[in-house]
Amino acid sequence: MSSAYASKWVPKPDHVTVKGSGLPLGFRASAGTVGIKASGRPDLAILTCDGPKAASAIRQTRSGAAAAPVQVNREHCLPGGVTGVVVNSGNANAGTGEEGYQNAIRMQSAAAAALSTEPAAVAVCSTGVIGNQLDIESIEAAIPTVVAGLSAEGDSALAEAILTTDKGTKRLEIEVQLEGGTVSVTAQAKGAGMIQPAFATLLCFVQTDAEMAAETCDLLLGATVKRSFERISVDGQLSTNDCVVLMSSGASGVKVEPESENELKLGEAIDSLLRHLALEIVSDGEGAVRVGRVVVEGGDDSLVEHVARTVAGSPLVKTALHGGDPNWGRILQAVGMALPDQPRLVVDIEIEGMLVCSAGAAVDCDLDALSTAAAGSEVEYLIRLPGSGSACELFFSDLSHQYVTINSEYTT
Amino acid sequence: MSSAYASKWVPKPDHVTVKGSGLPLGFRASAGTVGIKASGRPDLAILTCDGPKAASAIRQTRSGAAAAPVQVNREHCLPGGVTGVVVNSGNANAGTGEEGYQNAIRMQSAAAAALSTEPAAVAVCSTGVIGNQLDIESIEAAIPTVVAGLSAEGDSALAEAILTTDKGTKRLEIEVQLEGGTVSVTAQAKGAGMIQPAFATLLCFVQTDAEMAAETCDLLLGATVKRSFERISVDGQLSTNDCVVLMSSGASGVKVEPESENELKLGEAIDSLLRHLALEIVSDGEGAVRVGRVVVEGGDDSLVEHVARTVAGSPLVKTALHGGDPNWGRILQAVGMALPDQPRLVVDIEIEGMLVCSAGAAVDCDLDALSTAAAGSEVEYLIRLPGSGSACELFFSDLSHQYVTINSEYTT
Repeated sequence: MSSAYASKWVPKPDHVTVKGSGLPLGFRASAGTVGIKASGRPDLAILTCDGPKAASAIRQTRSGAAAAPVQVNREHCLPGGVTGVVVNSGNANAGTGEEGYQNAIRMQSAAAAALSTEPAAVAVCSTGVIGNQLDIESIEAAIPTVVAGLSAEGDSALAEAILTTDKGTKRLEIEVQLEGGTVSVTAQAKGAGMIQPAFATLLCFVQTDAEMAAETCDLLLGATVKRSFERISVDGQLSTNDCVVLMSSGASGVKVEPESENELKLGEAIDSLLRHLALEIVSDGEGAVRVGRVVVEGGDDSLVEHVARTVAGSPLVKTALHGGDPNWGRILQAVGMALPDQPRLVVDIEIEGMLVCSAGAAVDCDLDALSTAAAGSEVEYLIRLPGSGSACELFFSDLSHQYVTINSEYTT
Repeated sequence: MSSAYASKWVPKPDHVTVKGSGLPLGFRASAGTVGIKASGRPDLAILTCDGPKAASAIRQTRSGAAAAPVQVNREHCLPGGVTGVVVNSGNANAGTGEEGYQNAIRMQSAAAAALSTEPAAVAVCSTGVIGNQLDIESIEAAIPTVVAGLSAEGDSALAEAILTTDKGTKRLEIEVQLEGGTVSVTAQAKGAGMIQPAFATLLCFVQTDAEMAAETCDLLLGATVKRSFERISVDGQLSTNDCVVLMSSGASGVKVEPESENELKLGEAIDSLLRHLALEIVSDGEGAVRVGRVVVEGGDDSLVEHVARTVAGSPLVKTALHGGDPNWGRILQAVGMALPDQPRLVVDIEIEGMLVCSAGAAVDCDLDALSTAAAGSEVEYLIRLPGSGSACELFFSDLSHQYVTINSEYTT
C-alpha cells in the first residue's frame, strides 16, 4: 500500500531491487469469490509451487485456542514439503470444534485433489469471524474453478483475496543479487485490518525461485519472522489464526547452500521484505496514524523483551503516541510496572534521540523540538536499563478513536 | 457518587448500616488550596487520628518506578504507627529523583510539626502529573492553615481534595453492629479519573473508631484490599502512586480481638465498603459506560488469575463491552493467548449466565436474550477451565472513545 521500504527503520539492502508484480519462477496463484464475505469481494485463493526443487517452511500462532486450519497444518502437513496453500477470508474457522476441524480437512483435501497432489502438501489458512462454521460445500465447489485460473501473475489476486478490513493489499516483489545469478522473492500479507471480531490476524505467504533445502527455508523463515512479525503489536492480542508460509521452487537454478554467502544475502533480503510488510501491518493497524518503535537496552534478554512489550502494550503510551505527545511519564510508569518491587529504578529514556529522563528523573530538554519530534509519523523511544549486551525492539501502532469505533460498533 | 452498594456484585452485609458524612470518633480532617491544580480546586488535605488507642496499616504500589512519597512511607513510616496523612493532588511527585524525595520528606516533616507528632507517624501521598517538581514551599506554608481547620466533619473536604479528574467524590460512611457496640467505618477514595498523565492512580483512606491492634489493622487491610482494589482494572496500568491507609482510633471502646467474631464482622464490613469504592473507581474509569466482571474457574490459582487479567486487559474484550456486544470469540482468543502452546483448549464461556462456548466451540443460544444481557450496565463473564478448586474475579471498565480523548488530547 505504502511505497516499498518507506519506513526509516527498514532500509533497502544494496543487493535488493524492487520490481513490479508477478510471482517468482515456478509459482502460480489464483483467487475467487465464494460469498463468505458479505461484501462480495474475493475470499478464496490458492497458491501452488510447481518446483522443480520445492521446499517450504511454516510458522503459526502459539495460541492455545488455535483455529482449526492451524491445527490441521500442525498435524497433517509434511514438514518442509508444502507446495500448495488454500486460504479463505471472512471466516476464521476458529472456535468451531470438531466440525470446524473436519471442514479444514475437507478444504485441504479438495485443494490437494484439484492440484493433483497429496493433502499433506497443502497448507490451509483462514481469517475472519470466530465461532461460525465454514460453508464448506461452497468452498469445495469453488476450488476447481480457482485452480483452473492459476497464473504466474496471480499474486495480486491472492493478496486481495486474503484481506479482511485491511485498508489495502500488502505485498512486495524484489530481486536479489546472489552469487550465481538473480533470484526473485515475493510476499503477500494481511493483518491489522479487522473483520468481526478482529484479532489483527496475520497471514503472510513468501515465495522465491531460489533453490534451497527445507532446512534452509526453515532457518531463514525462523530468523526473519523473529525480526519482523514477532516484533509488532497493534493491540497486543495474539490471534487464533496467524500463519506464515515460505516456499522455494528452485526454478531460478541459483543455489543457496547452508552457511554460504548466498544464504546470508537471501536472508538479508527476506528480512528487509518481511520487516517492510510488518511495518505496513502496524501502520495499517486499526485506526493507526503513527507508528512507534521502542528499543530497550540492558543486561538481560528476557527482561528487555518484557519491558518492551509492556511499553508497547500500554494504552497510555499508545494514546500519547496517537496525540503526538512526548509523554515520557507514561513510559516510566510502564517500565515501573514491568519491573515491580525494586527500591529505585535506574532508567534512562530518550524520545527521538533526545534525553528526557535520566536515572528515573526528569531532565531539562528542548520541549519545542521534543513536541515536533513526537508528532512525526514514526516515533522512536529508547529505554536504557542497567547492564548491557541485550536489546529488544518492538514496533507498535497508536490507540485511536477509530480503533474504538472499529471494535465497538459491531453487534454480533 | 453513585448510591451506596449500587452494584449487584456488592451486597450490603446485614450488620452494616449506611450513614451520612462525618468521621468516626477520634478522627479529624481538613483541606486547603495551594494552587497545584490549575483549576484552582482544593489540592491539599490532612487527616489525623487522635486516638485514644491508635493503630494503622498501609498498602502501596509495587511499581519499580514508585513515586517519592511511596518511597518515603516505605522507608520512614512507623509500621502500625501512622496517625496522620498529608496528601496533595495535581502533582504525583514521581519521576522527580532525589529532589522529589527530599520534597516528600519536607512535606512529611511539615505536617508532623503542625500535628505535633513525629514525622514517622505521618504518611505522605501524592497524585497527579509525573515528572514535575512539587512547589514544596507553598505546601509547607499552607499546612498550618489546613491543620488549624481540622474537624470531625472534614471527610467531605478530604474526599474532594484528593480528586484529579474523577467525575466526583468517592466515599462511604457505614456503621457496623459488633458484639459490645456499634463502630463507624468511613473511607475516601480517588482513582480512574485522569490528571496529566493519568495512571488511574488510586488513593484510599479508611478510618474506624474500633479498637484493635496494628496487626489486626494489617490483617484486615491486606485481606480486603486483595478482594477490592487488587481486583479492578481500568487500563491494566500499575500506578506509581497507589496508596491505601487504614487507621483505627479505638475511640468507640468496642474491641476487635484477633480471630474473634468481631474481627470477622468488621472484616466483612470493610470488605463491602472497599469493594463498593473499588467498583465506583471502575465505573468512573476514564470514559467508562459499562463495568465487566470476569470470573475464571479452574484447577490452578496462578493460572486462573493470569487468564482473568489477560481477558480484563484485552482491548478487544473492552471495546466489545463498550459496544454492549456479547462477542465471546474475543474472550476465547484472549484465553488462548493466555494459555499458549496447547493442542486443544477445553474452555466453557458463559455471558450473564448463558452458555455461549462449550469445550472451545460455539453452542447455540438465544441471541436476542444474549444481546440484551450484554448491553446492561454490569456484565458478567464466566470462564471455566479444566480442574476445580481455584477461582479469580476481576472487575474492569470498557474501552471508549472518551478514554482515547482523555488520554490523547493532551500535550505535555
